[in-house]
Amino acid sequence: MADEEVYRASTYAPVNIAVVKYWGKRDTTLNLPTNSSLSVTLSQDDLRTHTTASCSPTFTADSLTLNGNPQDITTPRTQACLRELRALRHALETSNPSLPKLSTMSLRLTSANNFPTAAGLASSAAGFAALVRAIADLYALPTPPEDLSRIARQGSGSACRSLFGGYVAWNTGTSPDGSDSLAHLIAPASHWPDMRALLLITNPSQKAISSTAGMQQTVATSPLFPHRAAEIVPPRMRAMEKAILSRDFDSFATLTMKESNNFHACCADTHPPIFYMNDTSRACIRVCEALNVAAGRAVCAYTFDAGPNCVVYYLQADEQVVAGSFKGLVGEGKEGWEGKGVEARAAPQGLETVGEMVRQGVGRVILTGVGDGPRRTEQHLC
Amino acid sequence: MADEEVYRASTYAPVNIAVVKYWGKRDTTLNLPTNSSLSVTLSQDDLRTHTTASCSPTFTADSLTLNGNPQDITTPRTQACLRELRALRHALETSNPSLPKLSTMSLRLTSANNFPTAAGLASSAAGFAALVRAIADLYALPTPPEDLSRIARQGSGSACRSLFGGYVAWNTGTSPDGSDSLAHLIAPASHWPDMRALLLITNPSQKAISSTAGMQQTVATSPLFPHRAAEIVPPRMRAMEKAILSRDFDSFATLTMKESNNFHACCADTHPPIFYMNDTSRACIRVCEALNVAAGRAVCAYTFDAGPNCVVYYLQADEQVVAGSFKGLVGEGKEGWEGKGVEARAAPQGLETVGEMVRQGVGRVILTGVGDGPRRTEQHLC
Repeated sequence: MADEEVYRASTYAPVNIAVVKYWGKRDTTLNLPTNSSLSVTLSQDDLRTHTTASCSPTFTADSLTLNGNPQDITTPRTQACLRELRALRHALETSNPSLPKLSTMSLRLTSANNFPTAAGLASSAAGFAALVRAIADLYALPTPPEDLSRIARQGSGSACRSLFGGYVAWNTGTSPDGSDSLAHLIAPASHWPDMRALLLITNPSQKAISSTAGMQQTVATSPLFPHRAAEIVPPRMRAMEKAILSRDFDSFATLTMKESNNFHACCADTHPPIFYMNDTSRACIRVCEALNVAAGRAVCAYTFDAGPNCVVYYLQADEQVVAGSFKGLVGEGKEGWEGKGVEARAAPQGLETVGEMVRQGVGRVILTGVGDGPRRTEQHLC
Repeated sequence: MADEEVYRASTYAPVNIAVVKYWGKRDTTLNLPTNSSLSVTLSQDDLRTHTTASCSPTFTADSLTLNGNPQDITTPRTQACLRELRALRHALETSNPSLPKLSTMSLRLTSANNFPTAAGLASSAAGFAALVRAIADLYALPTPPEDLSRIARQGSGSACRSLFGGYVAWNTGTSPDGSDSLAHLIAPASHWPDMRALLLITNPSQKAISSTAGMQQTVATSPLFPHRAAEIVPPRMRAMEKAILSRDFDSFATLTMKESNNFHACCADTHPPIFYMNDTSRACIRVCEALNVAAGRAVCAYTFDAGPNCVVYYLQADEQVVAGSFKGLVGEGKEGWEGKGVEARAAPQGLETVGEMVRQGVGRVILTGVGDGPRRTEQHLC
């Protein structure tokens, strides 16, 4: 058996940050959500997972490493993805017997993130999107990304949205088997390319109020949550799609902020309560509010995932106002401002207290923007 | 006109801390709430307003002082209380012409709190309850406290509950004129006298994220709030009343904590969001959770009004476990522990981080318990 008989494909996959939040599963095995969600895919220049999928008749077992560390590949979520992808490859091989029998070989999966894992950024979305995309490329599957998103969803719910660039919706679907719970493109990054994102990463030394409970605790105990899922999110999905299609930043921003707050309100209504934001997070909210008031219009929108880091969306034309003001508050010396062309400026009046909290609490920043979907690459990690 | 022609009556009135929260008005002029609420009246030995109401034909104008500082008596809320009380006195004077015409004389109202105003404790409830009770006594009104509560409600909504001791409900009522929106006794303090309250007053130096918005902003903007008012509070009112009547601390505690979180969730869902709790508040929550887990039952329940101070309810039998553990965390040197017989003890394992936050963030404590309603006194302030 020759050494060259190793098959490889590699991909980069992006992070996405939801503006209509996914929280709560109606089926925990299939990762079916209680409500639809919508996200902006961020640029892979700043945040991405790089994954190489390889297989060979010489490999003796499936394996997965992340940033050089072996990972457990036997989890039901990962196994569900591998099983579905192998089944699709097997069907190809059956219809075309000349194809190599990759579906029978062990897989070696090697991943690396270009952002610090300590930053507390949800990397599982990019990770599972990269894993599914890389194996699909390795297997030369003709499967469209919508169908791959159905597979990635079983690895990590929000991963399904990272199979597209730009503005992406994940429909909750109605089928019990999850066949219609998949992501689709609302608009590519090129539709509204001047969307920018400033990630304010809270200092790891900031005190955290940890929580052991998660989204299913919210489903089980929050009396507000069913109202959110059934009544609040559906009209917001329609309004957010409309705002994006019409490039209406004011509506986009207002909805984004309300959605983040509604999600965290349901976390706080969970028993016992779940708190992801800390005083630094709330100080970032007050800064965004002040910037919008000072401008007399929405120039920025904050949103928080399941953690204290603040993501601020804004348009390129307002970069100096938004990112510049945050640079003045956070401090020019913090990591992440270099080479981005943002000038520190004085923040609006009255932000002395929250400004000091932002300066103390934000450890680093990431300046990025909307970006495209997974990119195939010939740069292999193994 | 002789100098002795000054009529006086004085009262003490208590603070109350709600366990089913009042938040949102359906009528801002009449102070009619969107939902019913239920509170525990705290002991006047520790927290009370002392008010003397006096009138005399020699007085030339109504006046009000609090802790020696002149207050604006012309506010619509105060005027509504004075108008209603004078009308009741006028009816008495009409039916019995021998009575002195107090309703025609100017009122001099003098108030003092026995607790630090800087502590951020809602003092308006005790203040308006004392004002209404003192004038009613001055006027020798036979009006039952339920009817006085209707008057006090117009001064400050939660004041209506401070006209009773023990366990008190304020029914939202259905009448547009507010005639049935008044407080009534669920059970006197003697029904469940071993209820204790530990108030953890956050250090004023703790950073605050101020908010300009209030409860009507929640009514106007929170999509979760109508669900709370219509669907969540009514069954909780019934369950809380039942828990109190059966002295079921476990149910009382669980409902109290869920209610506090539900209220603050609706504040967070307001646009822009309202945050009253800070990281110290949330650390206090984690301590209460840990104490309940360590005990294997609910030994304490936290609740937060519109501010960062934590109120912890517990039963006398658990005072060493609850108050003692907090004393160990907060620090014995803090003001408020003296002479209360609580021994500092080690907190449960795993509370190092939140314990440090509690130690840094809590500036003083007040140890008190359930108490009785307004008390007439011959101690006059003027």
